[in-house]
Amino acid sequence: MARINDHYAKLQAGYLFPEIGRRVAAFCEENPGADVIRLGIGDVTEPLVPAIVAALHDAVDEMSVRESFRGYGPEQGYEFLREAIAANDYRARGAAVSADEIFVSDGSKCDSGNILDIFGADNVIAVTDPVYPVYVDTNVMAGHTGQADADGRYGGLMYIPVTAENDFTPALPDRAVDLIYLCYPNNPTGTVASAETLKQWVDFARLHGSIILFDAAYESYITDTSIPHSIYEIEGAREVAIEFRSFSKNAGFTGTRCAFTVVPRDLYGTTASGERQAVHPLWSRRQSTKFNGVSYMVQKGAEAVYSDEGGAQIRARIDFYLTNARLLREGLQKVGISVYGGVNAPYVWLETPDGASSWDFFDRLLSVAHLVGTPGSGFGASGEGYFRLSAFNSRANVEEAVARFQKLVG
Amino acid sequence: MARINDHYAKLQAGYLFPEIGRRVAAFCEENPGADVIRLGIGDVTEPLVPAIVAALHDAVDEMSVRESFRGYGPEQGYEFLREAIAANDYRARGAAVSADEIFVSDGSKCDSGNILDIFGADNVIAVTDPVYPVYVDTNVMAGHTGQADADGRYGGLMYIPVTAENDFTPALPDRAVDLIYLCYPNNPTGTVASAETLKQWVDFARLHGSIILFDAAYESYITDTSIPHSIYEIEGAREVAIEFRSFSKNAGFTGTRCAFTVVPRDLYGTTASGERQAVHPLWSRRQSTKFNGVSYMVQKGAEAVYSDEGGAQIRARIDFYLTNARLLREGLQKVGISVYGGVNAPYVWLETPDGASSWDFFDRLLSVAHLVGTPGSGFGASGEGYFRLSAFNSRANVEEAVARFQKLVG
Repeated sequence: MARINDHYAKLQAGYLFPEIGRRVAAFCEENPGADVIRLGIGDVTEPLVPAIVAALHDAVDEMSVRESFRGYGPEQGYEFLREAIAANDYRARGAAVSADEIFVSDGSKCDSGNILDIFGADNVIAVTDPVYPVYVDTNVMAGHTGQADADGRYGGLMYIPVTAENDFTPALPDRAVDLIYLCYPNNPTGTVASAETLKQWVDFARLHGSIILFDAAYESYITDTSIPHSIYEIEGAREVAIEFRSFSKNAGFTGTRCAFTVVPRDLYGTTASGERQAVHPLWSRRQSTKFNGVSYMVQKGAEAVYSDEGGAQIRARIDFYLTNARLLREGLQKVGISVYGGVNAPYVWLETPDGASSWDFFDRLLSVAHLVGTPGSGFGASGEGYFRLSAFNSRANVEEAVARFQKLVG
Repeated sequence: MARINDHYAKLQAGYLFPEIGRRVAAFCEENPGADVIRLGIGDVTEPLVPAIVAALHDAVDEMSVRESFRGYGPEQGYEFLREAIAANDYRARGAAVSADEIFVSDGSKCDSGNILDIFGADNVIAVTDPVYPVYVDTNVMAGHTGQADADGRYGGLMYIPVTAENDFTPALPDRAVDLIYLCYPNNPTGTVASAETLKQWVDFARLHGSIILFDAAYESYITDTSIPHSIYEIEGAREVAIEFRSFSKNAGFTGTRCAFTVVPRDLYGTTASGERQAVHPLWSRRQSTKFNGVSYMVQKGAEAVYSDEGGAQIRARIDFYLTNARLLREGLQKVGISVYGGVNAPYVWLETPDGASSWDFFDRLLSVAHLVGTPGSGFGASGEGYFRLSAFNSRANVEEAVARFQKLVG
């Protein structure tokens, strides 16, 4: 009899965002006239910029003519895109990453989940708390955890709290860990890590032979010039870190789908017999066996991000969302809410008024103010009592949301 | 210390097609003037058809305007595409599959590899031999096998030979198996399974509680009206089979990327404690956690496959490749080669002349005739002495390839 993967039974409720979707759909069905403003899921709202649109049209035309038609592309991604990434996202910032260390994919969510394929089952795994749920859920699915406790924390995972009490800076573990998930600018808290903080993590990983899984999907929102955009700006990081990047939030590709992962040639893991094994060939083998590359058209669209014209156009989009974040932040502060993030990230992280639980506040915000946010506890036990608002929306909706929020809690 | 997945060390050489790519690249570098014709990898050569091109352009335009812009889509795929698939690929053939049982993805290779995520580690797994290498390699990576023997067969997998001796019809196993990979029309042999053969497999699976992983990526090449296009045309299959389909070979999407997988609501597996567990929610959870859906534009392009215009246009492309297959088949038979497939599939499977080994024949064909094919042994030990030619090429190249082939062995 075909046996299923029993670890799935350990997963709690639904994945956070489908659960939010269900509650919002139920509310809208009962209240068809309600003007619901969604600041929940981190999904962009502004259209693709003209330079990308032009590149996509050109690529479609290429696909319509035999001489320029493209079939299977390289599983790792076209060189034109990998070279543009290496030059603009890394070399331009003084980080040594070569094109052959870049793997183009259809999403950071996929990559940050699939990366576990190449690691063993016995690693000690650390995540921050709150945390992007995909890191945790994919470890549960892979059988790397025990059951969840009453707070939703899975046995076997190390949770490192990040709250207002420690200024959202995760403490270094007091013992060795093997895989460490870090996300900066942080989802969900919107906070950032300084070069000094990242250096401590890199040094910790070098000391213990750990590998850092660094999610930099929001790096384009960094406004503070002292904050690193890539972990490879930190000395020694090439020996200890994999970095995930995405075109979702800088170029508005959430519905277009393109991302990439960097696996440096200098990165090694350990085999069962204690030998060093380069990680790059493992991920290369994983991708060439279980992936078939990203649509040519989409890769051409992504390449346009690095043109002068495309770069300026997406910069304007990012600045637009950052202004939204500032309006949310300032508007909430005005009525006495404690707010974090929203300066170097498109997320504002707030303490719920009157110490309400995250889901209670979610339900109240939805039912009374017709606003959708994301309950902090959905990101982990230490997110309880917090709430995330996304800056991805129109200016009018953000202003209206601030007004409704102020009315609700003012 | 971060431990890597030691199972990767069991994998042999490279994945087949990268290995072919390396040998061809080396030959071309040494012989820059050679007019190499590639009939190796099963990659389409003709451009996207006008109806699909128009749909892609329209979708790009939609993405350029705020009101019609699409961000994250449903992880399972847009309903417009899933409904079109259910109506045209299933209901029109009398197979009961509903839109909510369809999961749109970026490739059948991905799906047929990732599907193992939702199954347990202790299943007895059967594959035909020769076989599409992804089925085997992904099981090796997942730790479901032992080491490979001298013939390249991995311990712990059940290999079912399909050769000229048994008319390329795999014998039912003489003991229970849990997961069974079947691919029809078959890659690499180009042969098909009758309704009677499939019924025997469905009945076998029902008897043993097994699940059939049915790869129908080449169904559009079936010309014999008595051959089922979907396993769900067989009574009882909804309770025992997952089906993989692709737009790669019917619509030429190898570089555009779209596919889908059907997981019927009636399909159950077994938990460790012996309880029945529906498979659909497991795959749904897997996809919503580790996948973010297919590009909206690509899904709109795929939808055009089901329009009257698009359907007629892709039908012409398929017929073109099928004529190529016939020319290859007949041209080789003319010089006394034993040839299989090529009637209901874009692949021709031949016995190597003079009993040469598959790789020896590969090297001879490349160096003397400047033709690239795929060594049968690359698909498994029982493929030794066979060779695959793909019909995906221009008519002129196919005719030239036949002439060179005839000269080489005539």
